[in-house]
Amino acid sequence: MNDTINLKVSHYQNCMNDENSCNNPCPIARSVSFAGDAWSLLILRDAHAGLTRFDQFRKSLGIAPTMLTRRLATLTEEGLLEKQRYSEHPPREEYLLTAAGRDFLPVLFMIGAWGRQYRGGGELVRFFDAETGTEIKAVAVDEVTGAKIGTRPIRMVAPGES
Amino acid sequence: MNDTINLKVSHYQNCMNDENSCNNPCPIARSVSFAGDAWSLLILRDAHAGLTRFDQFRKSLGIAPTMLTRRLATLTEEGLLEKQRYSEHPPREEYLLTAAGRDFLPVLFMIGAWGRQYRGGGELVRFFDAETGTEIKAVAVDEVTGAKIGTRPIRMVAPGES
Repeated sequence: MNDTINLKVSHYQNCMNDENSCNNPCPIARSVSFAGDAWSLLILRDAHAGLTRFDQFRKSLGIAPTMLTRRLATLTEEGLLEKQRYSEHPPREEYLLTAAGRDFLPVLFMIGAWGRQYRGGGELVRFFDAETGTEIKAVAVDEVTGAKIGTRPIRMVAPGES
Repeated sequence: MNDTINLKVSHYQNCMNDENSCNNPCPIARSVSFAGDAWSLLILRDAHAGLTRFDQFRKSLGIAPTMLTRRLATLTEEGLLEKQRYSEHPPREEYLLTAAGRDFLPVLFMIGAWGRQYRGGGELVRFFDAETGTEIKAVAVDEVTGAKIGTRPIRMVAPGES
């Protein structure tokens, strides 16, 4: 496969108004402008691993500086990262996770859980609960019933339906 | 923002061998070739909603046929969809979720949960447990401790570390 992902973000913004809210009733569609971008996911992953500076992301990802600049700008505009100056002379800024960025961690863990199951050959990074020392096994559940997502029938209700 | 997502999938495949397994120890990185693509996420969403046919996806997404063809081919190669012939004269195929595709639902639900929290203006689709009738509230938890992902300190261990 030698495919090229070549999507205009504006495709998704056709459904959005200027406030970046959306007439699209699907909460997934509202998130894909950055969640559906491979570099953005990896930048968020690295931010959760503690990286904050341009050069750290660049080295970790092997990404072209222009592409990294664009992704960091998008993630900042989208409210997942915020810039903070850490040096005045010379002026230098780092990128810190916002609350919205921190709350993206469950998405990353579920992508990782899928990858562990279906792309799991060879050795993988593992994550442990630092308090108990047990390895983390991430699962998505319905907090109301406790059932794992996907194990019970789901009824979808569009706005206006009952 | 009028940005263009323009990633070569081969960027991610630099770390992959011919069997599409990966020397990259990160299970997220191994999944981004399709999970980091907005159209692929929306196709998977629609497949979970019961769509199976090219024209159904095309109409639902407003996607150009060439792009849809490419995405369906990738998702089939990656093992999330499988083609099945439903008519011999004329020959017609539909796309069904595989086990790997069905197991991607938790990722979609967590993206949706994030979108509901941070892109939630206006009315949204809602999901209910068809048995209990209660609205589903998707959360990612560590199955071992029961703690929500992100609420406790995490220790990351790379291959070869202890």
